[in-house]
This record gives sequence, C-alpha cells and structure tokens, in this order.
Amino acid sequence: MKKIFTISSIIFSSIFYSQVQKVEPAFWWSGMKNPELQLLVYGKDIQNLQPEFSNGIKIKEVKKVENPNYLFVTIDTNGVQPGKTKLNFKNGNKTVKTIDYEFRQRQQNSANRDSYTSSDVMYLIMPDRFANGNPKNDNTPDTAEKADRTKTGGRHGGDIAGIVKNLDYLQDLGVTAIWNTPLLEDNEPSYSYHGYAQSDYYKIDPRYGSNADYKNLADELHKRKMKLVMDYVTNHWGSKSWIIKDLPSKDWIHYWEGQENGFKRSNYKMTTQFDINASKVDAADCMDGWFDTTMPDMNQSNPMVVTYMAQNAIWWIEYAGLDGFRVDTYSYNDKKGIADWTKKITDEYPKFNIVGEVWMHDQAQMSYWQKDSKIAAIEGYNSYLPSVMDFTLHDALGQVFREDSGWDSGMQRVYDNFANDFLYPDINNILVFAENHDTNRLNQIYPKIEDYKLAMSLILTVRGIPQLYYGSEIGMTGDKNNGGDGEIRKDFPGGWAGDANNAFKKSGRTKEQNEYFDFTKKLLNWRKGNEAIHTGKTLHYIPNNNVYVYFRYTDGKRVMVVINNNKETQNLDLKRFSEGIKNYTSGTDIISDKDFDLKTNLSVAGKSSLILELK
Amino acid sequence: MKKIFTISSIIFSSIFYSQVQKVEPAFWWSGMKNPELQLLVYGKDIQNLQPEFSNGIKIKEVKKVENPNYLFVTIDTNGVQPGKTKLNFKNGNKTVKTIDYEFRQRQQNSANRDSYTSSDVMYLIMPDRFANGNPKNDNTPDTAEKADRTKTGGRHGGDIAGIVKNLDYLQDLGVTAIWNTPLLEDNEPSYSYHGYAQSDYYKIDPRYGSNADYKNLADELHKRKMKLVMDYVTNHWGSKSWIIKDLPSKDWIHYWEGQENGFKRSNYKMTTQFDINASKVDAADCMDGWFDTTMPDMNQSNPMVVTYMAQNAIWWIEYAGLDGFRVDTYSYNDKKGIADWTKKITDEYPKFNIVGEVWMHDQAQMSYWQKDSKIAAIEGYNSYLPSVMDFTLHDALGQVFREDSGWDSGMQRVYDNFANDFLYPDINNILVFAENHDTNRLNQIYPKIEDYKLAMSLILTVRGIPQLYYGSEIGMTGDKNNGGDGEIRKDFPGGWAGDANNAFKKSGRTKEQNEYFDFTKKLLNWRKGNEAIHTGKTLHYIPNNNVYVYFRYTDGKRVMVVINNNKETQNLDLKRFSEGIKNYTSGTDIISDKDFDLKTNLSVAGKSSLILELK
Repeated sequence: MKKIFTISSIIFSSIFYSQVQKVEPAFWWSGMKNPELQLLVYGKDIQNLQPEFSNGIKIKEVKKVENPNYLFVTIDTNGVQPGKTKLNFKNGNKTVKTIDYEFRQRQQNSANRDSYTSSDVMYLIMPDRFANGNPKNDNTPDTAEKADRTKTGGRHGGDIAGIVKNLDYLQDLGVTAIWNTPLLEDNEPSYSYHGYAQSDYYKIDPRYGSNADYKNLADELHKRKMKLVMDYVTNHWGSKSWIIKDLPSKDWIHYWEGQENGFKRSNYKMTTQFDINASKVDAADCMDGWFDTTMPDMNQSNPMVVTYMAQNAIWWIEYAGLDGFRVDTYSYNDKKGIADWTKKITDEYPKFNIVGEVWMHDQAQMSYWQKDSKIAAIEGYNSYLPSVMDFTLHDALGQVFREDSGWDSGMQRVYDNFANDFLYPDINNILVFAENHDTNRLNQIYPKIEDYKLAMSLILTVRGIPQLYYGSEIGMTGDKNNGGDGEIRKDFPGGWAGDANNAFKKSGRTKEQNEYFDFTKKLLNWRKGNEAIHTGKTLHYIPNNNVYVYFRYTDGKRVMVVINNNKETQNLDLKRFSEGIKNYTSGTDIISDKDFDLKTNLSVAGKSSLILELK
Repeated sequence: MKKIFTISSIIFSSIFYSQVQKVEPAFWWSGMKNPELQLLVYGKDIQNLQPEFSNGIKIKEVKKVENPNYLFVTIDTNGVQPGKTKLNFKNGNKTVKTIDYEFRQRQQNSANRDSYTSSDVMYLIMPDRFANGNPKNDNTPDTAEKADRTKTGGRHGGDIAGIVKNLDYLQDLGVTAIWNTPLLEDNEPSYSYHGYAQSDYYKIDPRYGSNADYKNLADELHKRKMKLVMDYVTNHWGSKSWIIKDLPSKDWIHYWEGQENGFKRSNYKMTTQFDINASKVDAADCMDGWFDTTMPDMNQSNPMVVTYMAQNAIWWIEYAGLDGFRVDTYSYNDKKGIADWTKKITDEYPKFNIVGEVWMHDQAQMSYWQKDSKIAAIEGYNSYLPSVMDFTLHDALGQVFREDSGWDSGMQRVYDNFANDFLYPDINNILVFAENHDTNRLNQIYPKIEDYKLAMSLILTVRGIPQLYYGSEIGMTGDKNNGGDGEIRKDFPGGWAGDANNAFKKSGRTKEQNEYFDFTKKLLNWRKGNEAIHTGKTLHYIPNNNVYVYFRYTDGKRVMVVINNNKETQNLDLKRFSEGIKNYTSGTDIISDKDFDLKTNLSVAGKSSLILELK
C-alpha cells in the first residue's frame, strides 16, 4: 500500500513538477529556539494545493496571498528530529507533488556562538575588487553583467577564491574579522559589482563562487581564528530578484502608484524617523522611497517580509557558520519592522553582533539606534541593534589631521566626539573607522604616511571595534570627489594575474607600501592581546597645542596614547596626567619598542604618536 | 523692669554697634513653604556672641566658620507672624546687641505667581546702554567707575529710570517681558557696565537706581501686564564683593593655591560635566576655574553658599515681585549645587520660570540641562531647570539667510534643528533667539531688512519663548568681530538727552528704522493673542528650494508659515501640505493683511515670508 502510494506520488510529481519551483528556505535545522518556520512555496497556481508533511510535522497556518503562485506555510518545528521528511502537496485528497524537506543537525554551540567584539579588528573588502582567485567564474551564463576591468563601474572578477587565497596575508596583517560587501547574487545588467541590489537571497553570486565556497570561506577563517561578517541588506532588494519580478502581493514593496515602475527616490532624511514635528509625507518619502532605481524598497511593516528576511539571515548564520552581520542602510528601514528582524536574530543567537549603518552626523541620533538607547526610549522605541557606527568620529577624522589647534578644531574635534560617549548604551560595541567603501579614502585625504599613522594609532586604541578598509594598509588612494565610487574601490594590486605590483607579498610591495603595511601589522598584532584596549575604560585630556592624550585601562593593564598632531615636537609636563599615569614610572612604545620615562616630562616628535604600555 | 531692660539694651547696642555690620537677608517673609532661614550675620569677632530671638523664634543651628566675623544662624520660621521682632546677641548672659528683624506679609498668591511662558516675547536690555533716565546717578560716591560715554567699555549712564521712561515704547512694540542684564552693584574699577561681577547681592547698583527703583520697575511693568526677568549669576561673584573680600571660609570660592589671587581661568569645556571619560583635572579646571579675573568662582558644593544664593534669589522674587530668572553660565556651576539652588526656588514657586544659559552646540548636551531630561537621567542627574536656551537654533540662524539650499545648508539647517525637538523634555519652554548681548548682531550678519524679517518671522512663530535684543527692532548693527563687545552693546539712539536720533518715537525714527520697527511691532502684537503659536504643536516639511513651510496648530487654530529664503519667487504646489492645511481653504497673511487662496498653489516672493492664519 505504502509502495503504491509512493509510486503514485512520483507520477504526480513529474506531472506537476513545474508547480513547485521554489521552497524557501530550502532546508532548515532542528532545535531552533523559535519553533515557527515560514516556508515560502512558489509555483504556478500553487495556491490551489494543500501542503501536508508525511511524518506529522504540524502545519500551523497556510496563508494565501494576492499572487496565486505563492503559498506561505507556517509550521511548528517543535520536537522535529534531524533528517529528511516529505512535504506533500494535495489537490483535494490526491497528493499531486511531494518534495523532500530536510531538517539538519545544528553545529554544536550554534545558538551560543561568539561574535565579533571590540577585541577584533574588522577588514572591509569589496570582493569584486580584492582578488580574482578563479578567473573561470568571471562570466557565468546565468548572470547578465560580464566582466570588464576597463570600466571603473564594471565587474572586475574578484571573488571568494581570491579572498581565501589571501587569508594568510590578512592574518599576517593582524586582521581578525572580515566584512565583505554583499556576495549574494546581484543580477543587474550593469553596475552590479557593489552587490547591493540583490536578486536571490539564498544564493551567492556565481561570479563570486557558490554557497559552498562561501561556507568554505567561513571555515578557512575559523581555522585561523578569524571571523566572517556578512553584509545584510534589509531595506531594499534588487529589481531583478525573482520575488520582486512576481511579487507575492503588492505590499511586499513600497510601490509608488502613478510613478514609473513604482519608483520614487527616498529623500534620505532619516531624522523623519524620530522627529515629532515631521510631516507624514516626508516620513513616508524617506522610509518608503527607494534607495535607488534598481532597488525596490521593501515593506517591513508586512510581517511576512520581516519573517522571510529574518529566516534568511538565520539560514546564512547556520549554513555558513557566520560570526556577525553588518546591516546596510539600517535607519532607512521601517522602524518597527527592522527592530523585529533584529530581535528575531538576537533572540536566536544572544551573543551575535550586528552593526547597523546609521549614517547620521549627530550622536543623539546615532545612539538612538543602539539597543536599549535611553534616547530612543523617550519615544518608546528599542531597535535591539547591538552595534552602531561612529560616523561622527569618521567626520572628525576627515578633518583633524590637517587642522591647527582651536576651540573646536584639530585634536579637539576627536576629544569632543568622545565627550558624548555617555549617550551610547554600549560604548564598547561601536564600530570605529576612518573610511569605508562609500567615503573618501584616508590616504587621499592625507597623502602623507605620518597622518595615516596618526589615524591608525587612534582608531586602533580608542573604544569600540576598529574597522579598516582594504588597501589602505598599503597606502592605496582614490578620490571619490574626482571620479566617483570607482576611485575608492580600485583593484587591490596583486589580486589579478599579471599585476605588476603584488602588494600581497612583502617582496612584491614597494618600499612605501611596506612602510604602510609594517606599521599597520605591528599595531594590529599588538592590539590582539591587549585587554585594556579591548574592554578598558577611557580617560582623556582636553588637547593642548593639538596634542591628544588618553589612557585605556583595566584594573591590571594601562596604555597611554599620545597623538601629537602638531608639526613641532611637544614636551608634555606629565604632572597633569597623574590620574592616568598613577604609580607607573615608564612605558614602552609598542611601535618603536623604546622605553620612555614617565616621571616628569615626555617629548613627542611633531606629527607622531606614542602608544605606551605602562610599566 | 521691661523698660530698664530696653534701656540697657540700647546702651550695649551703641557700644557694640560696629559688631553687627550686616544681617542677610535683612528681612524675610512669613509663610514661606520652606520654613528654614539661614541668616548671615557679619561683624568684627561676631563669633563670640550668641544670637537669640526675643519672641521665641526657634534658632535651629548656629554655625561658626573659619572667619570669626561670621555667624550663620539657621532659624525655624514655622508659625512666625508678620511683624518686627528683636534679635539679641548675647555675650554669656548679657545681651550686648539687639537688632530689629522683620517678617513681612507676602503678596497675595506670591507662591503661586505666574511666570513668563511661550506666550511672552522677551526683550533683552543692557541697562547701561538703553536709556539714561536719571543723569544724576551716572556717578555716585560709593562706586568706583565713573561714567564715560566715549569708552565702548565704559559706563554710559543708562539706568532703571531710563527703562521705566520707555516702557510705553516697549509696550507699543509688543514686548511682554524684559530681561535686563544684571542690575546689582558691580563695583569693579573698570569695565563694570555689564554687571556680571557683582559686589553686593542685596543691592541695586546706585548708578542704575535703588532697590525701590527696581521694585518700581516691576510694578510699572505689571501695570502694563508685562513681566520682569532678573539675570541671576550663581557661578561667580565680583572680586569687590564684601563677602569675597572677607570670606566666611576659604571654601566659599574656588581658590587656586599657588596662583596669583587664587585665580585660574576656566577651560570652559562644559562637556567635562557629563563626559564619562573626562579627567578629574579637566573637570575641576572647568567648574572650579574662574570665568574671568574679576570673577571668583563660587563653590556650590558648599551648602551654605547654595542656601545664601537661593535665599537671595527668593528675596528678590518676593521683594521686587519678579516674574522669572535668566541664569548666567548655568552649565559652569557645580552640577549638584546648581540643581539644589534651582529646586529650592521652584519648590517655593512651582510656576516660576528659570532659563539657564547653556551655551553649547549639541542638542543632547543642551537638553541635558532641562528639568527631567531623559539624557541627564542616564547619569542619574536632574537639574530641575525649567528652561534652556536654543543655542543650536541661534547657530543656524547666523548662517541660514546667506546660504543657498543644500543637503544641510540654507533652510535645511533650521529644519534639522527642530528635528531633534524630541530630546527636550519641555519643548515649549525653550528660549529662542537670533542674538543676545554676547553674540554678533543679527543686522550685522544680515544688513538687508529682508533677512531681518525672515529671522523675526521664524523666531516669533516657532515653538518656545522668543527673545529679542534691544535695538535690533530699529535696525541697530554692530560687529563683535571688529571692535569687541562694545560694538554689539551700543547706546540705544534717543536714550540720552541730546541724541540727534530718537528712535523711541515714531517721529524721531528714520524711515528705515520705522520699517524695522513697524514690521516687528505688527508681528509681536499679533503673536500676543495666538494660542497656536504659544502652545500649539509643530508640523514641518523638509525645505525644497530653500523654502521652509511649517504649521503651528491647536485643535481650534492653525497658522501656516512659509519662509522663502530663495532669491526667486517660489510657487508651491499645496498638495504636499495637505496634512497641514487640512480642510482650510484660505489664509490671511498677518503682515500684509492679504488673503491667500490655499486650494492649489501658493506663490511666495523671493526672500519673503508669509504667516497665514488659516480660515
């Protein structure tokens, strides 16, 4: 009887095969904290069929939507054991289609996995521009845009294999975590290399590699005790997404009636998210407007959308063994929806770190977005987002090293930034950076290595999680204001076969590149072991003569940092710093390995820094 | 027997007369909420005497301090009836001195007096520079600096009589409250006209008039339904203060050992008040450093100092019938001490408004100082200060009218300021101003009247309490950057006998002065009756093309304001503003009295504003 049934299933399966084109997620795990799983089932007129698991897994709800090609099947995975099960689709009493559905065993300690913290140094890579490890995947039949290295906005062929190939380089440099800009399929016909218009949320873009390659990247990183951070995009999907092209219902995206392709550009005024005076049209234009023409704005006030995205995020964490997220355009999302998404993930993985891009220029506004913000609580809001980006520090760093001392200029700018640290509910979980893939390059702003060194000395010793941007460690430049984004996203030299300059190897680097690299390497590798820098408190002094002095300290360890942004040598009377120096009498500069006496005076050369481990 | 006793008292009194030189406060009131009164008694070796009231008023504590010339007598005024009583000073059993001490009857409703609110328009006067009503008091024997109108930093002779004389002018203009910079005695030998180095906290400077004259000013204002706001200075006293010259104890001020005259200048970095990273020496330098050489920094962590100042403040409220305070350099005070001072006053007068000068450039930092701030609560602090000054709006106003439209320039600056309104616990109780006695003059920054009109249209229709600065309403200019403070504190024309130009009278004003005056007058007098402006909510729109549109509204009233900062006429499609316009179909511009149809479009001339009462 059973056998006959199976045979008939197969017959129906083949007839109706085309009817189930996609089930997402394609597989899941047993033993998740949240037992609910929402399966998206896609196929021509799938709405006419009733789903049923053969082994008794309970279906809680089957939701039909406007588009008959979708079914949303919510199941209860409580008690489900690892293994494959059959998901049958019935037409009346007849099973017309059966698919295998697998629940996998979770990795040990998966829920309680560690994540990136302020003990890490994060390295931001644009995969298309880093290294081309596998030239065979530069063009693939199923992706529209073909490789063309002559175009600054074209696909250049960088890929996951290229990253894996150079992990030793990164490990040697002292990086402990990698954030790649998106690797999921972005099938726009042009200008797709940045990957922020994703067309398939369950598939690595074949020009970068396969899903398995991505998992391999994580594994290779973990072997080296390094971490993988995924760049997740909740705010918008790519216009070529198969779901966007055949929407489950109109309210999956913000479709602007009467506008061509439903497109209306966001006004980008994120303050409308909390401004009690904001007009409804401005708030809607910001949140529901599109980030760009190829990026339909997702509607996170639709719980099905949020659930889809949260499950997808969790799927990648489980599948690839991810260590964290960076979330694109966090503050453009629907406020409640993005908080739900974030909470779903951190409920499942309590230690999982997620840093949101909150590109604002006011610390009250930035700290608003961090979990348990007292400022957001004024409006009864909690984003549940563990980490935010310190954009005001970035703003200050773009000016400070070309400025003289002033009431609010020079090093004072940086001091002033840290004066508002109390606004952040979790000050050590802030991403600190001098540049990223959207800003001008640090070495462009400051062509002299002395300024690069000052910036790095700072970024790598202040509170928070430092983030570097690929290539700056070998002095890469690029002027966004003159040539656009392509200029700040140039190919890493040595990443392509035949590159004359191979900066991945000491012998291939120019003398100047090695000077950048060696300084960075020394600083990063020292930082790895220093708990005072990772989790210590900060004690800082109002800059005099453009010299900024601060201490990072725990009970047992103490580091004194002196950033002399003055062109002249400065001689510090150390009496002023006794609260920081305490009973210590000398310090070793971790860059020069020289000892400095700390009893009376300290002389610091112009445009240089000292990072002293106190003894 | 009784008679004999009195006679003997008189004998002793005359012998020891010099021994009680001062009792402060010199009199008090019965029926205060706080029954405790701390009398400061001053006289040569007064510590050897024991005070006692003849009518049984209870002395709770007699405190001796380092300096034997002081006694601090805390009495319990519970149940004390109005009238005079004898305060005896005994040496052993013998009464060696008796003084009269009076408890006065409070004015009806004194405790529950109203104060200034957002329904008022406050006019800031520098008394020395406004009008010389009584040339006879320009020089007095007991004050050091003599009048000299040729010096921009000298005493010019303006006085209380001059203000009283011109109250009709101010009433006609539409002002409803006056804030004078300090009128208490400032006996510095030079540069004393600003009055911020006060030498006697219980005495109006005789060059301005008498205490009675000050009370008369309040009475004259009240007759006109106008209010008097005193400029109170808690942070520092003048170096010529009799108390400073013979300190009760060293810890009344922050005396810097090893520094000449105990003077060390503040570093003025007020962020050290809340910065969790700040060093103790920087925080102390800011709070305990002196504002200027002639201004010893008061120690508000000494409760006797706080009590002295709170009683003095209350004394002036009761004595003169004050309607409110402006507190100088609020955020330089000892944080806890100034909160105690503020609370003592508002506990006594729950509706009494106090606006603190919190000259910072960050809204989280400014709102920190307003009562019940959720931001200050992060650190467990509450200032109890009802009102703060909107310095960031001031900053924006100094630039906006000479800027083109941009992402964060032009009218966007102003919009951005209001986007953070949610940070303030009481947004309607914020002082809004384009200028004051310490900033450049509005008409200097913007020489064209069109810009003055735009600024006034804004200041007088946004949330908060608008504050004007004397003379701008007739177009007065002055460049602080070229000539210093004297330039922004010129004499009001017509305030001195013989002034060629008398701007206090329509006939005396030039055509241009009348244009400034008439515009201001119209706006102010209209504002008086408009509850939507006083207490309404705000709805604003992101500026397009440098045009800022906002609405102020209550359930029954609605005002639409359009500020066109563009040089060209702008034609607004009103569809965008439907949330603000609601079902109204037209509006009357309160300046031109013209009606405007609001059904489809609205045309606004370049560099002009419309303030439409919707109908």
